[in-house]
Amino acid sequence: MRDLVVFTGSAHPDLAQRICGALGVPLSPVSIKRFSNDCLQAQLLTNCRQRDVYIIQPLVPPTQEHLMELLLMIDAARGASAAQITAVIPHYAYARSDKKDASRISLGGRLVADMLVTAGAHRVLTMALHAPQVHGFFSVPVDHLTAIGVLADHFREADLANCVVVSPDLGNAKQATLFARLLGLPVAAGSKQRLADDQVVIDAIVGDVRGKRAIVLDDEIATGGSVIELMDRLDDFGCTGASVACTHGLFSGKAVQRLGSHPMIDEVVTTDTVPPPDDWPQLKVRSTSGLFAEAISRIHAGESVSKLFDGVDPTCGPPEATLPLG
Amino acid sequence: MRDLVVFTGSAHPDLAQRICGALGVPLSPVSIKRFSNDCLQAQLLTNCRQRDVYIIQPLVPPTQEHLMELLLMIDAARGASAAQITAVIPHYAYARSDKKDASRISLGGRLVADMLVTAGAHRVLTMALHAPQVHGFFSVPVDHLTAIGVLADHFREADLANCVVVSPDLGNAKQATLFARLLGLPVAAGSKQRLADDQVVIDAIVGDVRGKRAIVLDDEIATGGSVIELMDRLDDFGCTGASVACTHGLFSGKAVQRLGSHPMIDEVVTTDTVPPPDDWPQLKVRSTSGLFAEAISRIHAGESVSKLFDGVDPTCGPPEATLPLG
Amino acid sequence: MRDLVVFTGSAHPDLAQRICGALGVPLSPVSIKRFSNDCLQAQLLTNCRQRDVYIIQPLVPPTQEHLMELLLMIDAARGASAAQITAVIPHYAYARSDKKDASRISLGGRLVADMLVTAGAHRVLTMALHAPQVHGFFSVPVDHLTAIGVLADHFREADLANCVVVSPDLGNAKQATLFARLLGLPVAAGSKQRLADDQVVIDAIVGDVRGKRAIVLDDEIATGGSVIELMDRLDDFGCTGASVACTHGLFSGKAVQRLGSHPMIDEVVTTDTVPPPDDWPQLKVRSTSGLFAEAISRIHAGESVSKLFDGVDPTCGPPEATLPLG
Amino acid sequence: MRDLVVFTGSAHPDLAQRICGALGVPLSPVSIKRFSNDCLQAQLLTNCRQRDVYIIQPLVPPTQEHLMELLLMIDAARGASAAQITAVIPHYAYARSDKKDASRISLGGRLVADMLVTAGAHRVLTMALHAPQVHGFFSVPVDHLTAIGVLADHFREADLANCVVVSPDLGNAKQATLFARLLGLPVAAGSKQRLADDQVVIDAIVGDVRGKRAIVLDDEIATGGSVIELMDRLDDFGCTGASVACTHGLFSGKAVQRLGSHPMIDEVVTTDTVPPPDDWPQLKVRSTSGLFAEAISRIHAGESVSKLFDGVDPTCGPPEATLPLG
Amino acid sequence: MRDLVVFTGSAHPDLAQRICGALGVPLSPVSIKRFSNDCLQAQLLTNCRQRDVYIIQPLVPPTQEHLMELLLMIDAARGASAAQITAVIPHYAYARSDKKDASRISLGGRLVADMLVTAGAHRVLTMALHAPQVHGFFSVPVDHLTAIGVLADHFREADLANCVVVSPDLGNAKQATLFARLLGLPVAAGSKQRLADDQVVIDAIVGDVRGKRAIVLDDEIATGGSVIELMDRLDDFGCTGASVACTHGLFSGKAVQRLGSHPMIDEVVTTDTVPPPDDWPQLKVRSTSGLFAEAISRIHAGESVSKLFDGVDPTCGPPEATLPLG
Amino acid sequence: MRDLVVFTGSAHPDLAQRICGALGVPLSPVSIKRFSNDCLQAQLLTNCRQRDVYIIQPLVPPTQEHLMELLLMIDAARGASAAQITAVIPHYAYARSDKKDASRISLGGRLVADMLVTAGAHRVLTMALHAPQVHGFFSVPVDHLTAIGVLADHFREADLANCVVVSPDLGNAKQATLFARLLGLPVAAGSKQRLADDQVVIDAIVGDVRGKRAIVLDDEIATGGSVIELMDRLDDFGCTGASVACTHGLFSGKAVQRLGSHPMIDEVVTTDTVPPPDDWPQLKVRSTSGLFAEAISRIHAGESVSKLFDGVDPTCGPPEATLPLG
Repeated sequence: MRDLVVFTGSAHPDLAQRICGALGVPLSPVSIKRFSNDCLQAQLLTNCRQRDVYIIQPLVPPTQEHLMELLLMIDAARGASAAQITAVIPHYAYARSDKKDASRISLGGRLVADMLVTAGAHRVLTMALHAPQVHGFFSVPVDHLTAIGVLADHFREADLANCVVVSPDLGNAKQATLFARLLGLPVAAGSKQRLADDQVVIDAIVGDVRGKRAIVLDDEIATGGSVIELMDRLDDFGCTGASVACTHGLFSGKAVQRLGSHPMIDEVVTTDTVPPPDDWPQLKVRSTSGLFAEAISRIHAGESVSKLFDGVDPTCGPPEATLPLG
Repeated sequence: MRDLVVFTGSAHPDLAQRICGALGVPLSPVSIKRFSNDCLQAQLLTNCRQRDVYIIQPLVPPTQEHLMELLLMIDAARGASAAQITAVIPHYAYARSDKKDASRISLGGRLVADMLVTAGAHRVLTMALHAPQVHGFFSVPVDHLTAIGVLADHFREADLANCVVVSPDLGNAKQATLFARLLGLPVAAGSKQRLADDQVVIDAIVGDVRGKRAIVLDDEIATGGSVIELMDRLDDFGCTGASVACTHGLFSGKAVQRLGSHPMIDEVVTTDTVPPPDDWPQLKVRSTSGLFAEAISRIHAGESVSKLFDGVDPTCGPPEATLPLG
Repeated sequence: MRDLVVFTGSAHPDLAQRICGALGVPLSPVSIKRFSNDCLQAQLLTNCRQRDVYIIQPLVPPTQEHLMELLLMIDAARGASAAQITAVIPHYAYARSDKKDASRISLGGRLVADMLVTAGAHRVLTMALHAPQVHGFFSVPVDHLTAIGVLADHFREADLANCVVVSPDLGNAKQATLFARLLGLPVAAGSKQRLADDQVVIDAIVGDVRGKRAIVLDDEIATGGSVIELMDRLDDFGCTGASVACTHGLFSGKAVQRLGSHPMIDEVVTTDTVPPPDDWPQLKVRSTSGLFAEAISRIHAGESVSKLFDGVDPTCGPPEATLPLG
Repeated sequence: MRDLVVFTGSAHPDLAQRICGALGVPLSPVSIKRFSNDCLQAQLLTNCRQRDVYIIQPLVPPTQEHLMELLLMIDAARGASAAQITAVIPHYAYARSDKKDASRISLGGRLVADMLVTAGAHRVLTMALHAPQVHGFFSVPVDHLTAIGVLADHFREADLANCVVVSPDLGNAKQATLFARLLGLPVAAGSKQRLADDQVVIDAIVGDVRGKRAIVLDDEIATGGSVIELMDRLDDFGCTGASVACTHGLFSGKAVQRLGSHPMIDEVVTTDTVPPPDDWPQLKVRSTSGLFAEAISRIHAGESVSKLFDGVDPTCGPPEATLPLG
Repeated sequence: MRDLVVFTGSAHPDLAQRICGALGVPLSPVSIKRFSNDCLQAQLLTNCRQRDVYIIQPLVPPTQEHLMELLLMIDAARGASAAQITAVIPHYAYARSDKKDASRISLGGRLVADMLVTAGAHRVLTMALHAPQVHGFFSVPVDHLTAIGVLADHFREADLANCVVVSPDLGNAKQATLFARLLGLPVAAGSKQRLADDQVVIDAIVGDVRGKRAIVLDDEIATGGSVIELMDRLDDFGCTGASVACTHGLFSGKAVQRLGSHPMIDEVVTTDTVPPPDDWPQLKVRSTSGLFAEAISRIHAGESVSKLFDGVDPTCGPPEATLPLG
Repeated sequence: MRDLVVFTGSAHPDLAQRICGALGVPLSPVSIKRFSNDCLQAQLLTNCRQRDVYIIQPLVPPTQEHLMELLLMIDAARGASAAQITAVIPHYAYARSDKKDASRISLGGRLVADMLVTAGAHRVLTMALHAPQVHGFFSVPVDHLTAIGVLADHFREADLANCVVVSPDLGNAKQATLFARLLGLPVAAGSKQRLADDQVVIDAIVGDVRGKRAIVLDDEIATGGSVIELMDRLDDFGCTGASVACTHGLFSGKAVQRLGSHPMIDEVVTTDTVPPPDDWPQLKVRSTSGLFAEAISRIHAGESVSKLFDGVDPTCGPPEATLPLG
C-alpha cells in the first residue's frame, strides 16, 4: 500500500489536526506565501511522490482565499508526482450555486468542481452537500459523508422523552426523517409558503409539536433567519422549547446573537466541518474528525466507504429499496 | 446569418414537423438503418456544412434506441462540418438519474450529458428538467424552457371560479405557485410523508381545498401513482373534482386506465414533448412546438431566449429578487 | 497486486459465468433497473474501490440496451473509485460502422469507442474486430484476441484428409491462411465481384477445391447470405461438402434455417462470444472463456497477452517479418 | 463570409501554387527557420485573425521534417487567432500505419491524427487514404477526395478499344471497379497469395486479360515491387501491354528505373499529390489542384463537397444503396 | 460582424469605462452578489448570445476575489451562449509564479491560465507579462500588448536633454533599450549581484550616468524596494535626478511613501492597468485605454493586432531580424 | 513495487546504456523501422504491461527524426498498457522556442510539450531547460535536473588558485553564481549590449578578471559564437586563459574548430546529455548517467528527487529563502 500524506491550508487547521490524530499520521507542513501583489503560492514541505495525498480545506470565509489555497496545494501535489490526490472539503460552500434561477447567471457549484479537476484532484471527500444532485457536478469520484450519526450521538446522551424532530423545510425532510428514526422519535416539519418571488415564509407546522420539545435539524445555518422564523412558529403551535442541530454551523452575520438569545432555544449543536465562532462558548460542537479519518483510512485501504454508514444512512441499506422505480 | 437545418429521428416526428412548420423551414430527411447485428446507422440527407443544425429527439421509449439515434445523428452532423449542433431534447428522461442515493450506482443524468458532448453537441435545448440542478450536469450551454405558460393558456379559456392550484409535492411547489399566480388562483399542496425508505405517502393537504375544484400540476406523469394518491386525499378533504396538468405525459403502464377512470378527474391536460398514447382520445394535448420554434429562432438569430418568458417565468423577472442571498 | 472484481450485464451471463469459473473468482452481482420512463440504472453490488474491475458485455441484440447497460456499469465503477476498468467486449458489433462510405453518415465504430472512454473505461479487451483498423478508433489500450486457435482445436479432433480451408472473401483471406497453416491444410477463397454499388456476388473460387471437403472460415455470420452463396459456388466447382466455422455466430433472420438445411453443410462451428440461438441443437459451440480468463489473468498480473498466441497468431512471431516495409 | 488565407510549407510548393491559382487567391508567405540545434520554427507572414486558414502540406520525404513544419504552421495559425484551420494533406503517408499487426507496435496513423488536432487543426482535407477506416482515426471532420476522376480524364483522351482495367489486389478492387465503370471497360484483378508471413505473391489473374491492353490502377506506388510483379503475371497470361496509373506516385528506391524500363509498361500516369521525381520526363502527371481548389472553395462557402463527385464516386450516389445492411 | 459586448467586475471599473468610451460601446452591467457563506455569484445583465464578449478585469488586490469574479463572469458568458469570450486582463498578476524555484511549489501562472480556459475563455488580451515565456502557459491565443509607447509619449513632451534611460536589471534590459531608442536617448542599467540565495543587491551601474538625469523604466513596481536601491546607486554614481516609469504601478506596502519622498525622484509615471493609490496626487498616470480599445476593435474586426505596434515594438519589425537563429 | 523497463531510440544509445548500467537494469530492445514512404514505426520488444516505462531520447539532430521516434515509442508503450511512461529527455532542444518574439510565430516549446502528452507521456525527466519557465509548458509533472554538480566535480580535481567563474550573460548569471559558490570562487559576467534588433555584443565584463584564469559556464553551446566573443573581451580585460564548461555541448557548425583553436581556451568541458562530436578528442566529457540513474531510481521508488541536489542546488535549500516575496 502506498504511503499516505495529509496537508491542510489555513482554513481550518484544528480539524486537520484532529483528523490526523484519529488517523495516527502526522499533519505534513505547508508553506503558503503571499506575494507583494497579493498572489498566493503554496509549497508542500513533505515528499509526496507516488503517495496518496489528502488535502483538507473546507471552503469557509474568506472563501476565495481558501479556495485558491486549495487549488494551489492540489497543483503543487500534482507537479510533485503524487499518485492520487483527494481534496477533502468538509464544507463545499459553492454547492449553494447549483442552478440557473436567473438569466446569464454563473453556476459556481459546477465551475469550482471543474476547477478542482483542472488543478489535479482525483477524488473529492465531502460532507452534506446542499443538494444531492451537486454530486453529479464532479467528473471525478466523490465520497459524500453524512454527519447525522454524529449529531444523533449527541442527543442519545440526553433525555428524549416527549421530543420531536423538526425539519425547517418539508421539502427537504428526508434527513430529518432519518434522524428521527435513529433517535426513535416522531418527525414534524415547517411548511414554507412562497409569498412572492423573493419572500418565503414558514406558515405552518406539519405534524404534532404541541407540548413537546423540538429537535430542529438543518444542514447549514448561516445567518439563522430560517431557524428563528421556525422558532416563532413552533412557539405559536405550543412547542415548549427546542434544541437546534446542524452540520455546517457558519453562524455568519448576527446569527450568534439571534440564536443565542432566542427564548425557545435551549441549545445549539453543530459539527466542526467549519471553525466555530470565537465568541460563543455555549455552542456545542461535535467532531466529524473520526468520520473523516475513517473514510480516509478506508479510501486509502480500498475498503467500502458506504459500509461506514450501515445503520445510519438508509442509502446504505438494501439498495433495491431505494431506487425511484416506475 | 448561417443557414438553419433541422433533423429528427424516429422518436417523435410529429413534433418535429410542427416545430418546422412554426419555424417556416423544411424538416430535412434522415435515413436511419439497422444492421443485421442490430447496430444503428444514421445518415443526414441534407447538406449541413457550416450550417446551424438542430436535431429534435425526445428521450421516449424505447429510450435507448432513441438516445443512440440522437448520438449518431449528432456524430454525423459533426463529421459533416456543421457549424453548430443543438440537441433539441424536449423530454430529457435521464434527468431522473440525478443523484447517488445508493452505493455504486450509475448517474445516468450526468453520463448521458457527457455522451451528448462527446458525440459533438454544442448546445442543448430542453424543457422542464426533473430537477433544476441537472442543468449543471452539462458542460455546454443549456437553454431550459418551461411549459407552464402553454398549460396556463389552456385553463385561461375555462371557468376558473372556485378553483385552486394543487401541487402533489409541497417540496417542489415552486412551479405550482407560479402557475397559480399566472391564473390568479390560490395554491395548495400535498404533503408527502416518508413512512419507510421505500414508501412515500401523501398524508395531508396544506392549504384550503374544501368545496373547490383542483387544478393539479406536475412536471411528469409516468404510471400516475402519485396523482391517484393525491386524488384520494383531495377527495378526503372535500375537494369537488380536478383537472390534471403535466408537461411530460408519458402515461406508461396502467396510467391511461387509472387516470381515465378516476371519479375525481374531469380532464387531463398535457403537452406534446412526448408522443401521446394511442388510445386516449379524451386526453387534451397542448403543443409546445411554437415555443420550441421561437427558441430555435432566437438561438439562431442570437436573441435572448429568457426574454421569451417575460411575465411567465419569474426567473426572468428582476434578477436581484431571485438570488438566494444571505 | 490489487483485487480483481468481475461484473456482467444482461447480454451474456453464461459466458461471464464461464470466464469467472476459469479465472477462479466469483462473478459479482449487478442490479440493473428500468425506470418507468424506460431509462436504465446500474448498481454494482460488490465493493470495487481501488480494485481492477472487468465488465463483461458483448454488444448483441438488443444492442442499444446492452450498450447502455455497459456504459452505466462503467460509470458506476468509475464513480465507485475503481482503480482500473476494463470493458470486456467479446463481440464489438459497432466495428461494422468503420468507414464513411456515403455522405454525412455516422461512424458508429469510432463514436462508441469514444463513449466507452467518456464513461470511464481504461482498457478494452475484445475479439476478432471486423477490420483490424478499428483498433485505432480507441484512445485507450485494446487487447485484441483471436479465436482461430479455439476453432482449430475443434478440427484437430476430426479427420482432415482431403480437406481445404476456404475464405469467403479473397480480400480478407489473411485469417483463413493462418488457420490453414495451423491445420496443415491448403487454402482457397471465393472471389467477390461487385456487380453494382449494392450487389456483390461470389463468382469464382481461387484455389483447388474439386473433390475436396471445405472448411469455411468467416469472422462473423449474421444472416448467412454470403456463406450460402459460397456453398453454391463450392458445389459448382465440385466440392463434396463443407464445415462452416466462425467466431461471432449471430445467426440472425433466417440464418438458422438456411444454414441448417443446406445440403452442402455438414456442420456449423462457432464460439460463445455471443449467445447461441435457442433452437439449433446441432450447432457446435466452442468456448472462448478460457482465452478470456487467461487474458484477464495476464492483464491483471502484468504479463504479456500477446504471448498467449505464440504459435497461433503470426503477428506474435518475429516482429521484423510482419512489417509492411518498403 | 470570412476571408480565406492559404499557406504552405516546403513539402510541395508547386502544388500549393497551382491550387491557389485555381482558387484565385494568393499563396501567403511563410518563413520557416532552423535553429542551430536543428529545431524548426514557423512564422506566417500574413494576418490570419478570424480568417479561414488552409495549410497545404503532403507528408512526403523527408516526412518527419514536413510533418513538423505542418504542425508548427498550424500552431502558429491557432496562436494568431485563426477562425478555422484546415490541414490540407494531399498525401497522408502515416495512413500506412493503420493497424497493430505485431505486439507493442506504434499506431502512427492514429498518433499523427491526434497530433494534428493537438496542434490546432479543425478539419483535414485529404485524398485517397490507404484504408477507408483511417478516416475514423481523426476526431475532427475529414473531407476525403478521390483522384480517380482525374485519372479517368487522362484515359478518356486515348483509344480504349480492347482495354481492361486491372487491380493489383482483388481485395482492394473497389476503386478499380469504379474506375472501369467510368471508362466503360471490363475489370480484372491480380490474386495475391500469402506464401509466408512476410511473403506475398501475385499468383493468378481473375478476369480475362488475354490479348488485351491493361490499365492498372493502384492508390500508391512507392518502390513499385507489386506493380512489377503484376506485369510479369499479365505477361504470362497473354496481356499485350499496360498503362499504369496511381494517385500517389512516390517512386522511391529503384521505382523509376524498374517501371521506366519494364517492356510491358507503355506509360505511367500519376497525379501531383506528391512532387514528381526529377529525372523521369516520360511520367505523365495530372493535376489534382483543380479538385483541391474546388473542395476548398466549397468548404469555405459551406457547400457540399460530396456533390463534387456526383457521377464519379458511387459513395455519392443514392445513399441507400451503399449501406452494408443485414 | 457579430455584436460586441463588454463587461467588467469590481477590480477596475474606471479603466473599463475608459476603454468602452474609446470603443464607442456601452459598458454592459453585471451584478455580483455575495452569499451569506461568502461565495460569489455573477450575473451578466445584457444578452450575449452569439456575441463577442470582452470581460475586463486586472488581477489586483484583493486578487483572489477579483480572479473568482472574472472566472464566474466567464462561466456565465459561456452558459449564455456567447460566441467568443476574451478575458481582458490588463495586469496578469499570477505571471509572477512562473517557475519552480523550490521543491513541491505551486505554479500559479500556469494554473490560473488553465482555470481561465476551464471557465470558458477563448482568448486572453493582456499587457506586459512579467516574463515573455508566460505566453506559453496559455492553451488559447494571447494578444500581448506593451505600454512602452504610451509611456514614451509622456516623456516626448518633456525636455530630454542630458537624459539617459536606466533599467534596474541588466538582465531584463530589452524593454529599456527599446524605450531609449524610441526617445533617442542612451541606455544604462543596474547590475544585480546575488549575495546569497535570498539577497540580491544592485552593486554597479553599467553605462554612463554621471551628470545626467535618469529615466528609470520597470515593468511593475510593488513595494518599490528595487527602485529605491537603484536610486541610491545612481546617486553614488553622480546622477543628478530621476523620473521613474512603470507599466503596472501597484505601489503596495510603503511604496507611496518611499518613492514619494526620495530626494532623487522628481516624478513617477505609470499607467492605468491597475487602479492608482488614493493618496498620491503627484503620481502621473497615462491611460492604456486607447490601446486596449484599439486592440479589442482589431480583434473584433479580424485585423492584425501586431500592426498596432509598428514602430514601437521591434518584435513587429521585419520578422527575420528577431529570430534567435544559430 | 512495479517492474521498471527502459527503452531508447537512436538519438543517443550510449547514454541510455550508461544510465542502465548505473541503474543495474538491462536496456530493453526497440525496433525502429522506416517505411518506403519515409514514415517511421516503433516496436518495443520487451513486455511493458503494468510496468514503469522510461524512454530515453535527447532531442539532438536530426531533431525531427528523433522527436518522432520518441513520440512513437511513447505511443507504443501506452498501447501496450504501460502503467507509467516517463519521457527522459536529457536535452529538450525545443525549449529554445519559448516566447512569441514576432507576430504569428510558432511556440515549439509548448507545442512539443503538448505532443508528448498527447502521445501518452505521464512525466518528463529533463536537464537544464533553456529557461526555467519552460517547466510550465508541460501539463504533466517535470523533474528538472541540473548538471552543475557534475561539472563542478571536474574542476574540484584541478588547481583553482587565482580562478574566477564567468557567466557569458549577466542576465542569466544565477547558475554561474551557484557554480562559483560550489567551487569557492568569485564570479564575473559579460554584459551584453543590444546594438540593434538582431545584433547583441558583449561589451563589458562586470567583476574583476585581470590576471586571473576564467572558468566560463554556459548551459548550451551550439555554434559557439557567444563564447568566442566573450573570450575576446576576457583577453581585452587581461584575463590569462580560460576553461569553458557547458551542460549541452552541441558544437554545431564550426564550433569545434573555433573553440578548439582559440588561444585563450585551455580546455572545453561538457556532459553527455548529447552525443559528442566525432572529431574532437580533446573535449572533456563528464557523464550525467549517474544523475539520471539516481533520479529514475528515486522516481521509481517514490523518493524525493530534489533531495538529490542538497548542497548543490540552492533551490533545495530552505524553501522560505527562495521565494520572490514582495
